[in-house]
Amino acid sequence: MSQIIPKGFSDLLQQPIFANLATIMPDGGPQVTPVWFDYDGTHIIINSAKGRVKDRNMRRDPKVAVCIMDPKNPYRYLEVRGKVVEITEEGADAHIDKQAKRYLNLDKYPYRTPSEVRVLYKILPERSSSMG
Amino acid sequence: MSQIIPKGFSDLLQQPIFANLATIMPDGGPQVTPVWFDYDGTHIIINSAKGRVKDRNMRRDPKVAVCIMDPKNPYRYLEVRGKVVEITEEGADAHIDKQAKRYLNLDKYPYRTPSEVRVLYKILPERSSSMG
Repeated sequence: MSQIIPKGFSDLLQQPIFANLATIMPDGGPQVTPVWFDYDGTHIIINSAKGRVKDRNMRRDPKVAVCIMDPKNPYRYLEVRGKVVEITEEGADAHIDKQAKRYLNLDKYPYRTPSEVRVLYKILPERSSSMG
Repeated sequence: MSQIIPKGFSDLLQQPIFANLATIMPDGGPQVTPVWFDYDGTHIIINSAKGRVKDRNMRRDPKVAVCIMDPKNPYRYLEVRGKVVEITEEGADAHIDKQAKRYLNLDKYPYRTPSEVRVLYKILPERSSSMG
């Protein structure tokens, strides 16, 4: 467990809850959308698809922030700021099915479109803030 | 109602739900935290306090993004990207009490600290994205 994540908030990284992922647009402004996430003990892992706004943003600028609210208490949250240190298609198909199991209890990710290329983004936490 | 907000999502601006507000740090990276918000039909209004990270960020760089998830359906959300067009302390004290009524059903905002100076940030929507 990274020292950057306060111990009292690491539970939020283990649950199948939504994160809000903020990335940087070409004009330098932020973009923020809800995403599923995963955590490998070091990196926060996002699974998206090639060509989406957040995909293009993270390829251009690796600086991101992730906010995870406790679904049982909206006044408790963990914010992690960090950098995308790896972008890979390897394992992304299997991983989105694993996420579908975790979030939807389905064996296969059901929203797949024929042409989409799944991509994994591994975020290394550098700073955090928390409340609650 | 601004034409930038899709009609089918304007309900999300009327409810006392949390928004995730993304702002820009001094290093150009994003910061994102949950906030209460208000909507005057044109601007998304955030009430924060002087000296906080998001206050310093919005004074330095007016580019922000706001994501509002439907509490009844996490796969439905509205993201608004825009600019802070006004920052003022005028009316901010009365407004945070109004927000406490809206979000907590309390007549007075209960988290006030003696030294804090409340500030209103009025965000003009420029782009939106939505899902669901």
